[in-house]
Amino acid sequence: MKRATKCLVLAAGAGRRLRAKAQSKPLARLLGLPLIERVIRTARQAGLRDFYLVTGYQGAGLRQALGDGRRWGVQLHYLANPHWQQGNGSSVLAAQDLLEEPFLLLMGDHLFDPQIITELEAASLDGADLLLAVDRAPAGYCDLDDATKVRLQGDRIVDIGKELPSYDAFDTGIFLCSPRIFPALAATLPEDGSLSAGVRRLAQAGRAKALEVKGRFWLDVDTPQALRAAEAALLDQLKKPTDGPVSRYLNRPFSLQLSRWLVRSRRLRPNHLSLLSFGLALLGALLMALPGYAALAAGGLLAQIASISDGCDGEIARLKFQASEFGGWLDAVLDRYADGLLIGGLSYHLWLIAPSAASWLWALAALSGVLLNSYTADKYDQFLKKRLEQGRRPLRLGRDLRLLLLSLGALLNLPFFTLVTLALLNHLEVLRRIIWLSRQS
Amino acid sequence: MKRATKCLVLAAGAGRRLRAKAQSKPLARLLGLPLIERVIRTARQAGLRDFYLVTGYQGAGLRQALGDGRRWGVQLHYLANPHWQQGNGSSVLAAQDLLEEPFLLLMGDHLFDPQIITELEAASLDGADLLLAVDRAPAGYCDLDDATKVRLQGDRIVDIGKELPSYDAFDTGIFLCSPRIFPALAATLPEDGSLSAGVRRLAQAGRAKALEVKGRFWLDVDTPQALRAAEAALLDQLKKPTDGPVSRYLNRPFSLQLSRWLVRSRRLRPNHLSLLSFGLALLGALLMALPGYAALAAGGLLAQIASISDGCDGEIARLKFQASEFGGWLDAVLDRYADGLLIGGLSYHLWLIAPSAASWLWALAALSGVLLNSYTADKYDQFLKKRLEQGRRPLRLGRDLRLLLLSLGALLNLPFFTLVTLALLNHLEVLRRIIWLSRQS
Repeated sequence: MKRATKCLVLAAGAGRRLRAKAQSKPLARLLGLPLIERVIRTARQAGLRDFYLVTGYQGAGLRQALGDGRRWGVQLHYLANPHWQQGNGSSVLAAQDLLEEPFLLLMGDHLFDPQIITELEAASLDGADLLLAVDRAPAGYCDLDDATKVRLQGDRIVDIGKELPSYDAFDTGIFLCSPRIFPALAATLPEDGSLSAGVRRLAQAGRAKALEVKGRFWLDVDTPQALRAAEAALLDQLKKPTDGPVSRYLNRPFSLQLSRWLVRSRRLRPNHLSLLSFGLALLGALLMALPGYAALAAGGLLAQIASISDGCDGEIARLKFQASEFGGWLDAVLDRYADGLLIGGLSYHLWLIAPSAASWLWALAALSGVLLNSYTADKYDQFLKKRLEQGRRPLRLGRDLRLLLLSLGALLNLPFFTLVTLALLNHLEVLRRIIWLSRQS
Repeated sequence: MKRATKCLVLAAGAGRRLRAKAQSKPLARLLGLPLIERVIRTARQAGLRDFYLVTGYQGAGLRQALGDGRRWGVQLHYLANPHWQQGNGSSVLAAQDLLEEPFLLLMGDHLFDPQIITELEAASLDGADLLLAVDRAPAGYCDLDDATKVRLQGDRIVDIGKELPSYDAFDTGIFLCSPRIFPALAATLPEDGSLSAGVRRLAQAGRAKALEVKGRFWLDVDTPQALRAAEAALLDQLKKPTDGPVSRYLNRPFSLQLSRWLVRSRRLRPNHLSLLSFGLALLGALLMALPGYAALAAGGLLAQIASISDGCDGEIARLKFQASEFGGWLDAVLDRYADGLLIGGLSYHLWLIAPSAASWLWALAALSGVLLNSYTADKYDQFLKKRLEQGRRPLRLGRDLRLLLLSLGALLNLPFFTLVTLALLNHLEVLRRIIWLSRQS
């Protein structure tokens, strides 16, 4: 099948339950970005580039806010639907002269995992006129009263609507449509202007199919409650499966709250946060290199704060669709410099109080251990991800744990003991990784 | 087109010009492996698993030497051709009842780049009965008198043979055949038992096509001279495009000669060489950590020897088809430990003669610089390879150069100056890589 390359997005409704002030609902901001921007950029992640936005209520404002899409690497075309109050079916119909091939149909207020689009395209229409992504058991927030339900026979849709007496799954609002949706909508419009009415008509003719999305995220943002649920869900998705225990229970909860707050700034970019975290570590290293317990403790505390704030660059990058391969790499390199400086600062502190050969050698051992732990992390994490998919959670001694150890060691005024611990733990972790990976090869 | 999964290999001839003692020519050893084993394992790299070997002269010995192929992850089937002296066409005919689908046809004494098979399969027969890989301008060794030539019209073969008055390209001995080659050979056999006679018959009917291999390696090993050329070519292929200048002009020439000699041992595995190189570096580090110039110089010399011998594990792995992802990774990790130990040894030597804070800090800076250079190498090398494909040769400060610097520094009895140099050069190199990569992103 030819890939659907065009995407119709419905953004005409008034969204009274969510709307604040005079803006239209698709412009309601969620973690720093308007809802509709999230919809478009998520679809872009699934490979779509050509978008047709149907506007109605406050259409001019929407158009002005979004522009032509070039800054996101997509093309945005606008279709005004003066009859938007007749229902969302009339908004789909507004595109009938423009879409002559199968196309993706999205709601301007439904957030989703881009994999759902990929799965719809992989399944393809396969002879049907419409393929709707449905969810039998939504894992996330779902407003049971207001949600559109579907009744299924096998993978055929037999009925759809908000008030079905019995149903099998929920409508995720993500469709793959052939242009045959248009005559169906034209036929139902005089009586019922909803999209569901047109889908029902195709369903009655046995021409509408459903594809089940299992465990994939999607969320219809209709109410302030749903908006809060969406925020919580997006933040939760930022946790990484390879996060170690310190990250999971200490750093991540803090950094997510920090990111939630920082993401509102339109100017702040992920690289700024990488530099901030690096700056905090540098300051911590300099403080630790000063004589006296107070400076050592302050430096140690800064190391832990740097460790927490280090999560924010990646979190904000993903929240704002600004993640890049280079950005991720640069962050990793800066982290290694921060690690090296912190070990250097602690070592120099030790030199000031105990300039022995043992201090010298343990400092070198700790520094090499920390850097070689990171050197072997990529390869080990590939293995780790496979294990996690199998439901296991293998050990991982990473940056989260070692910066906490360094911080605690400084706070407890134990520089020598801390360097010895870091050296032994990190080199043993590298040895353990070599043994694990050799068993897998 | 269905992929050709079976491979017919001709190994029946006597090979008088190459043969030494009583063995058959396909068993002639080249850099530790019999020619025919190289042919089979190269074809396996291109994805083939099912091999039909036609034996003739000394067939029993060949069969005994190669076995069922399980140890190489392939299946070997043997077909005896009692009439092998009639010519190689009769050997192909021996397989006529077994091959009912398109198949690959290889010569048991022709070495080649596995990409040639991939390209033949990608081109596919496309309606013809035979597709022969041909070379208009062999880059490597080619015995002009003895080579089989082809005359072409576009991509059609119009004539083939050793004695063509004029020709356009050389026969590489790598064919994709339909089973229609068999009746053609049956028809020409009474007059001419060669494979060329059958191919000529198909060519006259307009059923034989040629695919040009541009710059790909292939070599017909017929004479002791060709065997030496093959050895030189295989060794030359071990040079890496990302080799730095010290590697290219100093380390690689030595390590290739060492590998050429070591590869003859049947027991020696690449991991043994990785450990040997690591052991040499460890010994060098321990010597450098002793007081006195003699130990320092001896340690420095060992560092350079370790650097040279470090090439051998990868070279031997590739020469013996023993390269593995884990092996490559483990070698890299061991190299990092060797680097760390060498810096540690030099630093400790410096501590013995000048235990100052400056020595301490420069030691830490050199150690982190060396390890961070390696940490950033993977990403930089991806970029480097793209540049090399564009015909440029960008700077690369890698292990080859830094171990030479360390060795020279130790020989010149300049531990402090060496650590400072290594620290500055490596950190500047990392900075340079960050800047280059940021420009590309």
